[in-house]
Amino acid sequence: MAFTFQINNDIKFNHDEKLLAKAAANEPKLKHTTVKATDLVDIVADEQAFNGYKAVANNQDIKQLPTYALKKGGKLVLDFGDHQVGRFSIDIDSVGSPMDAPLYLHLTFAETPAEIGVDASGYDGWLSSSWITEEYIHLDVLPTKLSLPRRYAFRYVEIEVKDTSPKWQASFSNPQVVTESAVSMTDVPLVNIDDPELKRIDEVSIKTLHDCMQSVFEDGPKRDHRLWLGDLRLQALANYATFNDDQLVKRCLYLFGGMTTTEGKISANVFTTPKVTPDDTFMYDYSLFFISVLSDFYKQSQNNEVLNDLYPIAKKQIELALKAVGNDDLLVMDEDWPVFVDWSTKIDKATAGQAILIYVLKQFIGLVQQKEPDQVARYQALVDRYSAAAVSQLFDADQGLFVSGPNREVNIASQVWMVLAHVLDDAENEQLMTKAVAKLFPVTGIATPYMYHHIAAALFEANHQADAIKLIKSYWGKMIDLGADTFFEAFEPENLSFSPYGSPVINSYCHAWSCTPTYLIRKYLVK
Amino acid sequence: MAFTFQINNDIKFNHDEKLLAKAAANEPKLKHTTVKATDLVDIVADEQAFNGYKAVANNQDIKQLPTYALKKGGKLVLDFGDHQVGRFSIDIDSVGSPMDAPLYLHLTFAETPAEIGVDASGYDGWLSSSWITEEYIHLDVLPTKLSLPRRYAFRYVEIEVKDTSPKWQASFSNPQVVTESAVSMTDVPLVNIDDPELKRIDEVSIKTLHDCMQSVFEDGPKRDHRLWLGDLRLQALANYATFNDDQLVKRCLYLFGGMTTTEGKISANVFTTPKVTPDDTFMYDYSLFFISVLSDFYKQSQNNEVLNDLYPIAKKQIELALKAVGNDDLLVMDEDWPVFVDWSTKIDKATAGQAILIYVLKQFIGLVQQKEPDQVARYQALVDRYSAAAVSQLFDADQGLFVSGPNREVNIASQVWMVLAHVLDDAENEQLMTKAVAKLFPVTGIATPYMYHHIAAALFEANHQADAIKLIKSYWGKMIDLGADTFFEAFEPENLSFSPYGSPVINSYCHAWSCTPTYLIRKYLVK
Repeated sequence: MAFTFQINNDIKFNHDEKLLAKAAANEPKLKHTTVKATDLVDIVADEQAFNGYKAVANNQDIKQLPTYALKKGGKLVLDFGDHQVGRFSIDIDSVGSPMDAPLYLHLTFAETPAEIGVDASGYDGWLSSSWITEEYIHLDVLPTKLSLPRRYAFRYVEIEVKDTSPKWQASFSNPQVVTESAVSMTDVPLVNIDDPELKRIDEVSIKTLHDCMQSVFEDGPKRDHRLWLGDLRLQALANYATFNDDQLVKRCLYLFGGMTTTEGKISANVFTTPKVTPDDTFMYDYSLFFISVLSDFYKQSQNNEVLNDLYPIAKKQIELALKAVGNDDLLVMDEDWPVFVDWSTKIDKATAGQAILIYVLKQFIGLVQQKEPDQVARYQALVDRYSAAAVSQLFDADQGLFVSGPNREVNIASQVWMVLAHVLDDAENEQLMTKAVAKLFPVTGIATPYMYHHIAAALFEANHQADAIKLIKSYWGKMIDLGADTFFEAFEPENLSFSPYGSPVINSYCHAWSCTPTYLIRKYLVK
Repeated sequence: MAFTFQINNDIKFNHDEKLLAKAAANEPKLKHTTVKATDLVDIVADEQAFNGYKAVANNQDIKQLPTYALKKGGKLVLDFGDHQVGRFSIDIDSVGSPMDAPLYLHLTFAETPAEIGVDASGYDGWLSSSWITEEYIHLDVLPTKLSLPRRYAFRYVEIEVKDTSPKWQASFSNPQVVTESAVSMTDVPLVNIDDPELKRIDEVSIKTLHDCMQSVFEDGPKRDHRLWLGDLRLQALANYATFNDDQLVKRCLYLFGGMTTTEGKISANVFTTPKVTPDDTFMYDYSLFFISVLSDFYKQSQNNEVLNDLYPIAKKQIELALKAVGNDDLLVMDEDWPVFVDWSTKIDKATAGQAILIYVLKQFIGLVQQKEPDQVARYQALVDRYSAAAVSQLFDADQGLFVSGPNREVNIASQVWMVLAHVLDDAENEQLMTKAVAKLFPVTGIATPYMYHHIAAALFEANHQADAIKLIKSYWGKMIDLGADTFFEAFEPENLSFSPYGSPVINSYCHAWSCTPTYLIRKYLVK
């Protein structure tokens, strides 16, 4: 996530200290690994390369790094060989006459070559330029170890000497990053994936998830390190299939459950520094997904303590969500509590929202069976009514596809979420996706791996395995073809330079909601 | 100093650990005072103001600082009421929605308004741009106390919010500086100075010296914090008249004495961090001034331990200096060991150099009398011969002035140093300065308070007290008229925008060699 802009800073929140204490008690002790730079590279413009830049080997040897002393204007680019999340340090000395002026450095941390190649000073997008991962540093005394206090997400580090003095140069050695993650790559069970392309997609998915698993499941480690609820749902699923770190999911559930508005609503995301704080952003589907995460967690862990603690909050989300349903049993869209579905604002989301409500209601019924079995019938009746309303009012029998909104728009999100909610039977679902593939593929206008995940998941659920694999390869595989070490926040295969922010320097190239192929591969393809 | 550019980094130095241990033993424990910002001001362009900018009161109240929350592009300027040298800190919080992006700040530390008014990014002078006292800072978590690790010299601090996010603003409180100096302003004896203009000049001189007295007598606290030998001579004299901190002079003498080239020559300056290191810059007069500083220190302290330790090194400087004298008993100029006298490269410095050699030889004889009385006659004979050569070959009887170089140039430096060396008798000196004032005043083309000091001192020595006071008022008094809290590194009264570096953002506005009026006033004017 990250793409949202609500200001509701007059909203009051309850803080349930008992639940928040459980969130705190489950904070992970981060694991650290020291990683050394592996190469020195040049970043060069190349029209064929992703966002117009690529890293190429030069004639420098990383072992000789200290001999490449830089004077004013000198640059070098360190390559750490893979995506890293952690703290950077480097030893710096002066060479020549005594150091008669400070050393002034500019450092750029880049997940991809373009973040170095593109001049970030020209960035004028709507997302804060404070996210550009660069630093200007004065050092008065050399030699020194420069240990930057901030955590960065990067593979490449450009070091530019803004100034020294003509009497001496700056020399660098021992560049390293001490990585941070709640989990270790070696925790993931090995599985047999024959297809080398899918095998690589699985690996990159896992690395993406690993780098996003910190003190919470982060959105993306380059920018806002927040915990988003809809993203958590996908991360938790991928986590169960790989690292299987129950504790971190539990912590995140308690964070959301511990801070609801006085009305009982769960925020779309929470901050954890300097103290735990819910954001003043609310999305209909994200609030509901608290139930999905709790349901998936319970299936995974059978942990009744967590269910007992959080069931009342889950139920509250249902109660609030039901108020948005009209007399015709269809969800009424409300711009103060929008249905997210995808970043795109060009698609009508009413039908997808209806499907999400049904999808979550079904998961909720599983919880109700544990906690209030006598209430199951009530919620099952709602599922039936809303499903019937969807079929009778939103399904266009002539086209064999769901329509959405007053203009009866046919879009991919509606079909996909209706499949995932299993509103139709399996045969009908298969038929629906056949129609969808025929009419709506190749997908265009969708930039989020989040929506692509749901398309791929719907294909698997609707017995379109070959189409699902094809989609995964053409989307996530395409990112790998473009050099991805981790999967991106945003990617439009038909528009490779797409950025929701108008510049590749702000994009996040390791983003949790894009980590799901490992879940899909391990759930649907690995025997 | 600072205005020099030699590279001799193949020169080897001896390190006399015994002398350097005494330098270390005399390192002062710095004194600290916490100073709060006193005002919020605007920096506005004004053609009449020094370097084109002035600070003006605005309608903001420093007591209300936390209420002036800044969004992207917002700025405020803190005024600390006087020149400060120390570490800056400020408390920062966010106001509005939760902080969903880092805070990106730009801070500019300015001794004068122009350093904020002028766009420093356009600086392209020959001195390193790394001296521009600005920082770019990312803060990931608010509230926080931002405590900058570097020491700054400033009166004004501009805080510019480069970016937040549209959802929140940055709020500031408790800006302060913990000052650093080896001495305390209250250590200075009160003396009676009736003339209010001279009284203010005395005060500003003392503040200038105070802010330059750190772990050594610094050049200037804004930029290179080095110890320069010629500057030390003047600082020590001003110090005896005010703070009277013998220990710091002793430390500096041991630093120079402890590190000479294998040939025995003393460098023009030393660095003290990360370890004591002599610079590879050498100037004829600066090497000789080691004797002046030792002579003045001995007169002040009668400290025989220091004299015994350093006399051999002083004698070595004389021996090396004498090698530069030709058969005609005149100094031969050598571009590898230049005579500094002043930054100006447009004046011929041979006659001034001859006078400085005589001036120092006379001080050296005072030391010889203590250590090798049987050798006094030898050095006195040299003084007599070099003085006779100066009068016979360098004095133009028709003009009544000294001439310099092959073109028999008449310049102020020659007259002044011949007066200070007392090559002529007192009546002749008075007559010489009468001619000098008539022909060479008002002084032009001289930018250093260092040379102006010697002109004023020569006027006092040659019984031209009124001219001396007039010069002090027109030079140092003019700086005060322009708003000086401390005296500048460089100042040309006839060219107010003069900068040796091409921009006011790099100039130092608190510079040790400009602190001498307090010495002159207290020596020549206070009864």
